[in-house]
Amino acid sequence: MNEMNLSNSKRNRDIAPAKGRLGVLLPGMGAVATTLIAGAHLVKKGLAEPIGSLTQMQKIRIGKRTEPRALPIKELVPLAELRDLVFGGWDIIPDNAYETACNAGVLGLDVLSGVRQELESIKPWPGVFEQAYVRRLAGTHIKTGESKMALAEALMDDIKRFLADNELERAVMVWCGSTEVYSEPGPVHQTIEAFEQGLRDSAPEIPPSMIYAYAAIMCGVPCTNGAPNLSVDIPALTELADKRKVPIAGKDFKTGQTMMKTIIAPGLKARMLGLEGWFSTNLIGNKDGEVLDDEGSFKAKEVSKSQVLEAILQPDHYPDLYGDFYHKVRIQYYPPRGDAKEGWDNIDITGWLGQPMQIKVNFLCRDSILAAPIVLDLILFMDLAQRAGMSGIQEWLSFYFKAPMALPTLKPEHDLFIQHLKLTNTLRILAGEELLNHSGLDYYEDERVGAL
Amino acid sequence: MNEMNLSNSKRNRDIAPAKGRLGVLLPGMGAVATTLIAGAHLVKKGLAEPIGSLTQMQKIRIGKRTEPRALPIKELVPLAELRDLVFGGWDIIPDNAYETACNAGVLGLDVLSGVRQELESIKPWPGVFEQAYVRRLAGTHIKTGESKMALAEALMDDIKRFLADNELERAVMVWCGSTEVYSEPGPVHQTIEAFEQGLRDSAPEIPPSMIYAYAAIMCGVPCTNGAPNLSVDIPALTELADKRKVPIAGKDFKTGQTMMKTIIAPGLKARMLGLEGWFSTNLIGNKDGEVLDDEGSFKAKEVSKSQVLEAILQPDHYPDLYGDFYHKVRIQYYPPRGDAKEGWDNIDITGWLGQPMQIKVNFLCRDSILAAPIVLDLILFMDLAQRAGMSGIQEWLSFYFKAPMALPTLKPEHDLFIQHLKLTNTLRILAGEELLNHSGLDYYEDERVGAL
Amino acid sequence: MNEMNLSNSKRNRDIAPAKGRLGVLLPGMGAVATTLIAGAHLVKKGLAEPIGSLTQMQKIRIGKRTEPRALPIKELVPLAELRDLVFGGWDIIPDNAYETACNAGVLGLDVLSGVRQELESIKPWPGVFEQAYVRRLAGTHIKTGESKMALAEALMDDIKRFLADNELERAVMVWCGSTEVYSEPGPVHQTIEAFEQGLRDSAPEIPPSMIYAYAAIMCGVPCTNGAPNLSVDIPALTELADKRKVPIAGKDFKTGQTMMKTIIAPGLKARMLGLEGWFSTNLIGNKDGEVLDDEGSFKAKEVSKSQVLEAILQPDHYPDLYGDFYHKVRIQYYPPRGDAKEGWDNIDITGWLGQPMQIKVNFLCRDSILAAPIVLDLILFMDLAQRAGMSGIQEWLSFYFKAPMALPTLKPEHDLFIQHLKLTNTLRILAGEELLNHSGLDYYEDERVGAL
Amino acid sequence: MNEMNLSNSKRNRDIAPAKGRLGVLLPGMGAVATTLIAGAHLVKKGLAEPIGSLTQMQKIRIGKRTEPRALPIKELVPLAELRDLVFGGWDIIPDNAYETACNAGVLGLDVLSGVRQELESIKPWPGVFEQAYVRRLAGTHIKTGESKMALAEALMDDIKRFLADNELERAVMVWCGSTEVYSEPGPVHQTIEAFEQGLRDSAPEIPPSMIYAYAAIMCGVPCTNGAPNLSVDIPALTELADKRKVPIAGKDFKTGQTMMKTIIAPGLKARMLGLEGWFSTNLIGNKDGEVLDDEGSFKAKEVSKSQVLEAILQPDHYPDLYGDFYHKVRIQYYPPRGDAKEGWDNIDITGWLGQPMQIKVNFLCRDSILAAPIVLDLILFMDLAQRAGMSGIQEWLSFYFKAPMALPTLKPEHDLFIQHLKLTNTLRILAGEELLNHSGLDYYEDERVGAL
Repeated sequence: MNEMNLSNSKRNRDIAPAKGRLGVLLPGMGAVATTLIAGAHLVKKGLAEPIGSLTQMQKIRIGKRTEPRALPIKELVPLAELRDLVFGGWDIIPDNAYETACNAGVLGLDVLSGVRQELESIKPWPGVFEQAYVRRLAGTHIKTGESKMALAEALMDDIKRFLADNELERAVMVWCGSTEVYSEPGPVHQTIEAFEQGLRDSAPEIPPSMIYAYAAIMCGVPCTNGAPNLSVDIPALTELADKRKVPIAGKDFKTGQTMMKTIIAPGLKARMLGLEGWFSTNLIGNKDGEVLDDEGSFKAKEVSKSQVLEAILQPDHYPDLYGDFYHKVRIQYYPPRGDAKEGWDNIDITGWLGQPMQIKVNFLCRDSILAAPIVLDLILFMDLAQRAGMSGIQEWLSFYFKAPMALPTLKPEHDLFIQHLKLTNTLRILAGEELLNHSGLDYYEDERVGAL
Repeated sequence: MNEMNLSNSKRNRDIAPAKGRLGVLLPGMGAVATTLIAGAHLVKKGLAEPIGSLTQMQKIRIGKRTEPRALPIKELVPLAELRDLVFGGWDIIPDNAYETACNAGVLGLDVLSGVRQELESIKPWPGVFEQAYVRRLAGTHIKTGESKMALAEALMDDIKRFLADNELERAVMVWCGSTEVYSEPGPVHQTIEAFEQGLRDSAPEIPPSMIYAYAAIMCGVPCTNGAPNLSVDIPALTELADKRKVPIAGKDFKTGQTMMKTIIAPGLKARMLGLEGWFSTNLIGNKDGEVLDDEGSFKAKEVSKSQVLEAILQPDHYPDLYGDFYHKVRIQYYPPRGDAKEGWDNIDITGWLGQPMQIKVNFLCRDSILAAPIVLDLILFMDLAQRAGMSGIQEWLSFYFKAPMALPTLKPEHDLFIQHLKLTNTLRILAGEELLNHSGLDYYEDERVGAL
Repeated sequence: MNEMNLSNSKRNRDIAPAKGRLGVLLPGMGAVATTLIAGAHLVKKGLAEPIGSLTQMQKIRIGKRTEPRALPIKELVPLAELRDLVFGGWDIIPDNAYETACNAGVLGLDVLSGVRQELESIKPWPGVFEQAYVRRLAGTHIKTGESKMALAEALMDDIKRFLADNELERAVMVWCGSTEVYSEPGPVHQTIEAFEQGLRDSAPEIPPSMIYAYAAIMCGVPCTNGAPNLSVDIPALTELADKRKVPIAGKDFKTGQTMMKTIIAPGLKARMLGLEGWFSTNLIGNKDGEVLDDEGSFKAKEVSKSQVLEAILQPDHYPDLYGDFYHKVRIQYYPPRGDAKEGWDNIDITGWLGQPMQIKVNFLCRDSILAAPIVLDLILFMDLAQRAGMSGIQEWLSFYFKAPMALPTLKPEHDLFIQHLKLTNTLRILAGEELLNHSGLDYYEDERVGAL
Repeated sequence: MNEMNLSNSKRNRDIAPAKGRLGVLLPGMGAVATTLIAGAHLVKKGLAEPIGSLTQMQKIRIGKRTEPRALPIKELVPLAELRDLVFGGWDIIPDNAYETACNAGVLGLDVLSGVRQELESIKPWPGVFEQAYVRRLAGTHIKTGESKMALAEALMDDIKRFLADNELERAVMVWCGSTEVYSEPGPVHQTIEAFEQGLRDSAPEIPPSMIYAYAAIMCGVPCTNGAPNLSVDIPALTELADKRKVPIAGKDFKTGQTMMKTIIAPGLKARMLGLEGWFSTNLIGNKDGEVLDDEGSFKAKEVSKSQVLEAILQPDHYPDLYGDFYHKVRIQYYPPRGDAKEGWDNIDITGWLGQPMQIKVNFLCRDSILAAPIVLDLILFMDLAQRAGMSGIQEWLSFYFKAPMALPTLKPEHDLFIQHLKLTNTLRILAGEELLNHSGLDYYEDERVGAL
């Protein structure tokens, strides 16, 4: 930590205020999106708590341990308020948000009845869809166009009309759609020019999620990606975001089993316990599970889930501990589970002298319940980033993603606790507060002061 | 982080070199102690790996993410080497370390045969024992004396003779004995004077573990406490340690279920997931379990285990999330488990809008296998602390304890990841390296440099 | 199987028809009783299925495997119909059945709304209560009387009035109240005379559940006991039942963890797998758990739960396999669980050459949901028994109980599958059908015929 | 039960005595076979117990409950003794049984050292192998021949030489080899003639396991099949067995997860609890897992494992309870598990009014430890069957198999408890003892006698 940084962190950033209302653009208005919207309205009405959302509930420690202050994040930095959010989105099924929420079965009818009117008023615009990328779904409410560029322009029209109709100056897009079939970046994804030519040529390598991301960035709307699809995570679109000063982030919400993995693996590593094997199986019953039952979509998810252990455990540094563990992730479509999902992990570890031990984790969780507050936080933090003049990849939001985007020169961080410290210390920087490093030796040594 | 701190952390501390051999004094030469000793010899011979030990295996990141260096802790700060350790200890049973290790059943005979001679040569000195404090054990190899002060002096004689016989200049004591019956600090524990008078009067409030701690401090030997007994954690002895410039630390090794708890609870809190209840049950089959089958000893352990959740979750800051959770820890003596132990945790959490979810963790672990590397690290770090002129409570070693000692003015830290950052940043300070705060925003902003 | 038996089983028993309506008398109208009543009405209306009830759903195989017929139990023997049940009961709280069901939280309001009127019409009569036997509850709706005999007579008056008011000729009583404090049979429980004298003297050894059982038998009403209290399981009352030709049965409904135990243990024994230890822990959140949090009530439950393994595994026959296993049952009051309950079992088994293996069972179950169909079956089967002229202990209903009553000369049977065969073969006997023994060799040997 | 049967069961069967030594022929001398052989010798020497073996440990109840006698099976019927077994076998790797046992890692070296000499003396004969049927293994110790008939004759030569060299009159074959790729019976498997022509033509539809079975039957050696391959379970070979009066049985040893499934499912059905879904995952680390990692072999295993639930639960009888459950079995090759294996089952059940509950079972088991005693029992019971003149399919041994063979006119029985009663009552028939049907009503009714 040097002087510049210090002076910098001591000075409050120049952040534009969060005045006026904020548009929320959701491609994919299914279980996650409608659970978010229902919840936002329920919370506004005082009927429920926004549990799981850092922007709504978390406090940040400021000051020394002996005189700590704990400031809610929303008081530390200027965030949009829940009451200022205006929701809109696209889907390939024309049901309104109330109908979708009822079918999703995440929230009971007794809960939904409190916000029925608000949900019914939200009707999705026709979506951009390509069967080859989501083979298990069939859409009936779909945009048509002469080329993928025409589809992108149609999306931009939707966005502009939404902003105008609601008199909004700012908006954020969060992809809440299905997992597309796995693909790797190719030539068409390398430059803005190649990508735009691909749009005009309707290149098969460009899936819907990229068309949405392109449309958002072109409209100056920050965009993030909750699925493992490439979407904005290609050179062409990160370059475009940099150029247009638009924040982007992704990818794949870190909700159930992977969240637990990025909690436990750092603990094993901190303690220098070895790893022989980690087997993860997942029971998923909702539409997400149905889509992942297709092996192309599954591969995208599997790749996203598989890299976290290597990244956290650093086998290159610890070949004796982590050089040869067996990691397997399996996902099972299991209809009886409904929107709930269930993870079972078996972890084979070693301790002193290589003696084996085992950990089993059974996580009875709920997909949309864990994802919705992430979407809310991303909306508010992406908007904050834009108002603070931060553009391009927002690595400080890695905390929310299974496969966080980072500069090509940096290794993505997967350790949930480092991610969290990164997020909170970034907020401290934005607020001009001192950073926390928990060294704390100074409390025990008279001659030294100041460390937190 | 201010300038002073910076300049401070940039300057290497004045640490005396770790030259010569280091005595290791172990009150309680049972399963944990003999597993440590056997392991230390096996590792020296290249027959096994010191898994679980940070001093032997962990690397510390130094430098920026773009040009990181990962330095083994033992290269960052001057630590004693395994080959320089000389083991001695006390027990209330006269078996040598090989006999004890065989009976403990932690390591197989095939493993122990490689270090049989080294273990056989270690015969415990008669122990200080008081039936009222460990009601389930019976000792046959016990010191007698006119008063508790006389017993303390007998221990000091043992220590001095051990140092002289082995030509040692430094030693460290780590309590590896049984859990004593629960007690709270009383008048006799408040001042050095009262305590010494109590020793002379054989006050019933002074259990064996305090007599050992007193003897160590009086000999200038750093001492730590691996059980939940008060031992050194009373005003009289912390004052004595300060006065005699002796480092102390404790208490109760964080090995199995509580270790997992302090890994998972910070993750839930980071994500702002609510907690409704946490039920922990423990199956323990070894002598430890037998001792804990006595309700007095159990209470000491229970108190030690129960406070971690409150400390981590901060119900005062988050009454909606953590203001009313039901936490219950049960320990069950279960002979079929042997030295292995087993934890089962049921965790009831809430997410978005208060919806319930559950996590179950089944940890099939091994007590001595998890404890032995902790003992090793404490030996080496306590010796480091003394050579670095750090005395009194070593809070930076909280990482290793279920009930970490801290200044009365500070709340003890239980979050394993904060504890770990505290430990590693303390090492960075000792080594004169920059501290890590993971903010990392500078990599994304041209105008700023230097943050880690 | 000899000729007599054959001819006997071939002849249909003389069973009085189930004509008219059947009174159901429930001491303790809490979660279990109201779940039963709500369910009975919901099933009658076609709004739900009577899952878990053999009388409503199970079919019995009749005839040879090559030409099997599967007859619903209700067609095999004459049972009362759901529509003929009339419910009444006692409680120490005056809430009607709808209020109680709402508070119990077993069934959602949406479900209960379908039978609200039926439930509201059932208001409990004041109960017989004695604080010393259920220390955690407080009653406000309680009978008073000069002696326990007077209380018994008051109960008989309730029964007679209920029968008269509803023009019923038959009734059955099933104890659905709380677990009383543990007690063992004493002199007052040995003979009818001593017992009746005890009632007149208000002997403290006579708890409410015995007073109810006495009243039922005196009225000629079959009675069973769903809790581990002694209740009818004392010599005085079995003698009275024999004398008055009244069927009795008990005790303690076999619902969650013990049900699983009596499923799995017979499997281990069939396979001759050894047992080293079986640890069972139970999380219970409802009023049942609260009552069991009192150590007196807990002991009654613990004794009831602990004997099943010995009875099934026969350590006297198999000392090498089952002579020395460690069995521990713990019950934990855990409010977050509500009416749901949860069992976790760890089972340490041995196989070939004594090699160890482990089984863990986590049962996320629901107390009242598992108990209600048992109550229904007992009502209908006890009524059947009475019409078939079977009186005294109905051992063939052991299937439903954790601590089944049997003749003093017989060992109670705990193996769920033997219990089930006993139940179904008893029904075959009542129906005059051949018994099933599954030998089946005859299908493979031309010269032999007839075995099932 | 009719008179004929009665008189029959009352008369002791005419069973040839088990005199002389008995040959044991094991195709596939891997982990299971060597664990059996090692164990048989250890047991003979009194160094270990034959846990898991009914023939060695189980007692059968004879007589009434009030005066029960419990007779060891080996006293009830004449079985060969352990000391009379002579082991031989084939393998595609030339290692002797000691080398194989060491590599398998099932038993520790300390255990194996007690029977090293006995194991070293057993060297497998070259095996019949076809890569297309076991794609993950490579053999180096393989028979060659002009046709599959020539290979069969070579096997018969091995058998005859083994019998002659050891002066044996009787032998039994138990397939302990790998799981072959899935196949269904085709024309070549329908008649003896077609099959023998197929052998001469080296028909690709005839895998090694059928060649072994053919050779055994032709030599008059009873044969059973521990893998899910068809092997003897084709019309041609069952016809051949009938014709040559040779007992046969199969298929696929019921060891870990499926054993538990056939224990728990009958319990759910007995209680009339509904089933929504059953998800089973299996971690297998040994050669068995490696072979099953091939999808062809996996399919054979999957089919074998999947049918048990339908067979037990009878969805045709209980469409409301079992008409639509989701059953999925997954097997995962997981090297860290070694010869141990692990099953995790999630079972979604419903109770009263359709309310959902869940059961999770985690079985930490050991493949060879569970299989070895099954092999031993099959050896001794198949030999018994032959001496008792029972030929063709031995359905009474269904207890040991995941996919039990039965007459085409009969449904195979999968319920472990019915299988057990079938086995024990068959033994009672062979011994001329009364059958057990557990009705037991007679104990309560003076006028009736004799039922068990």
